[in-house]
Amino acid sequence: MQDSIQTYMQQVGIQARKASRILVSASTHLKNHALSAIYTALENNQAQILAANQIDMENGRQRQLDSALLDRLELTPARFKGMLQGLKDVIALVDPIGEITDMAYRPSGIQLGKMRVPLGVIGMIYESRPNVTLEAASLALKSGNAIILRGGSEALESNKAIAAAIQHGLQVSGLPEHAVQVIDTPDRAAVGHLITMNEYVDVIVPRGGKSLIERISNEARIPVIKHLDGNCHIFVEAQADLQKALPIALNAKTHRYGVCNAMETLLVDEAIAEEFLPRIAELYAEKQVELRGCPETQRILGESVKTATEEDWYTEYLGPILAVKVVSGMDEAIDHINQYGSHHTDAIITENFSLAREFLARVDSSSVMINASTRFADGFEYGLGAEIGISTDKIHARGPVGLEGLTSQKWIVFGDGQIRQ
Amino acid sequence: MQDSIQTYMQQVGIQARKASRILVSASTHLKNHALSAIYTALENNQAQILAANQIDMENGRQRQLDSALLDRLELTPARFKGMLQGLKDVIALVDPIGEITDMAYRPSGIQLGKMRVPLGVIGMIYESRPNVTLEAASLALKSGNAIILRGGSEALESNKAIAAAIQHGLQVSGLPEHAVQVIDTPDRAAVGHLITMNEYVDVIVPRGGKSLIERISNEARIPVIKHLDGNCHIFVEAQADLQKALPIALNAKTHRYGVCNAMETLLVDEAIAEEFLPRIAELYAEKQVELRGCPETQRILGESVKTATEEDWYTEYLGPILAVKVVSGMDEAIDHINQYGSHHTDAIITENFSLAREFLARVDSSSVMINASTRFADGFEYGLGAEIGISTDKIHARGPVGLEGLTSQKWIVFGDGQIRQ
Repeated sequence: MQDSIQTYMQQVGIQARKASRILVSASTHLKNHALSAIYTALENNQAQILAANQIDMENGRQRQLDSALLDRLELTPARFKGMLQGLKDVIALVDPIGEITDMAYRPSGIQLGKMRVPLGVIGMIYESRPNVTLEAASLALKSGNAIILRGGSEALESNKAIAAAIQHGLQVSGLPEHAVQVIDTPDRAAVGHLITMNEYVDVIVPRGGKSLIERISNEARIPVIKHLDGNCHIFVEAQADLQKALPIALNAKTHRYGVCNAMETLLVDEAIAEEFLPRIAELYAEKQVELRGCPETQRILGESVKTATEEDWYTEYLGPILAVKVVSGMDEAIDHINQYGSHHTDAIITENFSLAREFLARVDSSSVMINASTRFADGFEYGLGAEIGISTDKIHARGPVGLEGLTSQKWIVFGDGQIRQ
Repeated sequence: MQDSIQTYMQQVGIQARKASRILVSASTHLKNHALSAIYTALENNQAQILAANQIDMENGRQRQLDSALLDRLELTPARFKGMLQGLKDVIALVDPIGEITDMAYRPSGIQLGKMRVPLGVIGMIYESRPNVTLEAASLALKSGNAIILRGGSEALESNKAIAAAIQHGLQVSGLPEHAVQVIDTPDRAAVGHLITMNEYVDVIVPRGGKSLIERISNEARIPVIKHLDGNCHIFVEAQADLQKALPIALNAKTHRYGVCNAMETLLVDEAIAEEFLPRIAELYAEKQVELRGCPETQRILGESVKTATEEDWYTEYLGPILAVKVVSGMDEAIDHINQYGSHHTDAIITENFSLAREFLARVDSSSVMINASTRFADGFEYGLGAEIGISTDKIHARGPVGLEGLTSQKWIVFGDGQIRQ
C-alpha cells in the first residue's frame, strides 16, 4: 500500500510538472476562458455538489466531528454563491505573468531586466472548508501554476464534486486536465510524499490548525508559505491621540475574535496608562472582554483584572480575552513585540513622527502599522483581490499572499551578439 | 562535547539575534563608518593576516590537501589587495534598507506600501577561500544583517585573523561586536546546529562543492540560498545570425571553464546544423575543446566526435568538454533545457522575434538570454555590485544574489485612526 501510494503521488507530480510547462505560456485570454468555463460548470452542477457535501456532512456526524468543524465543512446555497463570486473576482484580476520590469542597458551592452513567471507546481494542504478547493485552484490557474490539492478526508466528496466541475472547465478551454489535481485517497502517507517530492512541487501552502502547519513545515523538503499564529500587538504610545487609540484598540480586539489579525496583547506607555486604561477597560467591559494584566495594569484597573502569566504574552486567544501590559516606553514595547509576537501584524498609536518612524523600522513583523487597526492586514483590504494565505516568514512572500506570491521573477537579457570580455 | 557545542552555538545564535535588532535601524552613515574602520584595520594588519594564512597553508600541506584547494586557500598580497577593493565597492553601494515603495491609499483610507528591511541573521557556510569571510561580512553589515560565519577548518587561522580586524572595526564604530561572529571550533557538529536553529538564523548561504550544498539543504530547517550546479545551454535556432552565434558559442564555452555560467551543452536546430556545426567545431578545435555529440552531430562532424551518453546531458563539465545535440526545433530545445538543465542560465541565438519571445517565457531558468553569452550571468555584470551567491531556486532571490537578496519587504500602513468596518 505504501508503495502504491508513492507511485500514485509520483504520477500526480509528473503530470503536474508536465501541465505546468504548458500553463507557463498560456495566454491571459485562455486562462480566463478556462476560469469562466469552470464558473459555468459549477453553476450547472450546484445540486450535485451540494448533495456531495451532504454526504460529507452525514459521514462527519457519524464520525462525531465537533460542531465547529461541521460548520466549516458545510456548503450552504449562500456559501456556494460566495464561492462563485470569489471566482468572478479572480477572473477580474490582472494577470501578473509576463510582466517585464527594470529593463536597462549595462556597460557591456546587454539589456537586463526581470520577468514575472509562475512558480510551477503548488501543493496545497488544507482542512474542512471545501471552498478552498476552488479558491486555490483559481488563483493557481490565473498565475499560470499547476496545483495539487489535498483536502481533509472529511471533505472528500465535496472536493471531488468541485474538482469534477473544474476538470470540465479545463477540458472545455483546452488547458491541460492535470493543471488541477485532487488527491482522492484518504491515506495520510500522501501528504508525506507531497511535501517531499521537490522534483515535482515548487511550493507548499498549508492551511489549517497550528499543529498541522508545524508538522508540515518541519517535514517538508520544499519551501512552505505559512503562518503559525497571529499574536498581534497595539502599542498606545505616550503621545497617542486617544480619539484614535480608543476606537482602534476596541476594533482590533472585538471586530472579530477568531481571526489571525485580531489584537491579542495591548501595550500602554506608563505616561498615559492612568488616563487611557480605565477608558478602554470600560469599552471592553461592555463587550465582555476578559483582561489579563501586568501588576501595574492591575494597580490601575483594580482587582477585576486577572494576573497575566508569562504564557499569556505568547498566547493567540482567538477569543474575548486580552493581555495588557504597561511599558516604560518605545524600547520596552518593541522588545516585547519582537520577543513574544509572531511577526504577523503590530501597530503603534502615536502623534510623534520620529517615534512612529522608529517603530516602523524596528518591529520585525510582516505588517507594521501606524494609527490603524491590525484588522486591516488582509488580502482584500490590501487590494490583492484574493488571498491564498498569510506568511509570517521573511523569505519570498510576506504578509497576505495573493497572486503575486504564486509567482517569481527571473532575469532576462537581450543582446545582439555580446560576449564577455 | 556535543552538549557544549550545542550550548556554544545557541549562545552564538542569541548574540547574533540581539545584534541584528540593533543593526536593523543602524544608519547608512554608521554602517559605512564601520566598513571603513574594518578597511583600515585590515590594511594595518596585512602582515599578521598573511602570516596566519601561511600557518593554514603549512597545515594544509602537512594534511596533504590537493593543490586546487591549497590554491584557493592562499592569500597573496595581490589577492589581499583585491579583497580590500571588494570592500571599497561594498562601501560605495547604495544602502537598500529603509526603501519605501508603492505607498497608495486604499478605499478604507489607510495608506499602504512596502518597506525594505534586513533578513535578520545570516548563516554562511563555505570552504577554503578566506576572502569570503570579508565579502560575506561586509555585504551582511551593509544590508543591516548580523552574520555567523563558518569557514572550512583548513582556513581557520586566516579567518580568525580577518575576523579580528572586522571586530576591531565594529568596536571603533560602535556597532555591536556580535554583528559578525566566526565559529572557531573545527567540530563539524557546529554546522548541524547552525542550519537547524531557526529561532536565531533566518537564512543559510552555503558556498562550496555540490555535495556540501546538497547535504546542507537536505538537513537545513532554515531557508537556503543556493545553486547546486550550472548546466547552461545555448540554443542556436534556425534563424540565428551566425556572426552572433559563433562568437557567443565560443565565448560561453571557452572564456573560463571552471565557472557556473559556462555553457555545457550546445543545442543546434537541424535546419542550420550542416552550416553551423563545422564552423564552430573548427573554433573549438583551436581551443582543444572535446566534443561529445548526438548521432546527428557525429554524422555531420565525423568520427572525431565522441558519443554523448544520457549522463552527458546532465553534466556540468567545468572544463574543456562540450555536449552537442542537434534538435528538430524550439520545442525539443526547450524540453531538453527544462529536463536536463539546472535552471541556471540558458540562451537562444535567433533573429526571429516570436521565437525569442516564446523561449523567454518557457525556459524555466534564473537567467534567460537572447543573443548574448551565458557568461554574463554574474553579480558584477548585472550591476549588483557584489554577489553573495547565485540561486537557482524560485523562492526569494533568483540568479545572482547581491545586497537585495539579503533583504525582505514588509508591509507598512499609515493611518489616522482607521478601523475595520
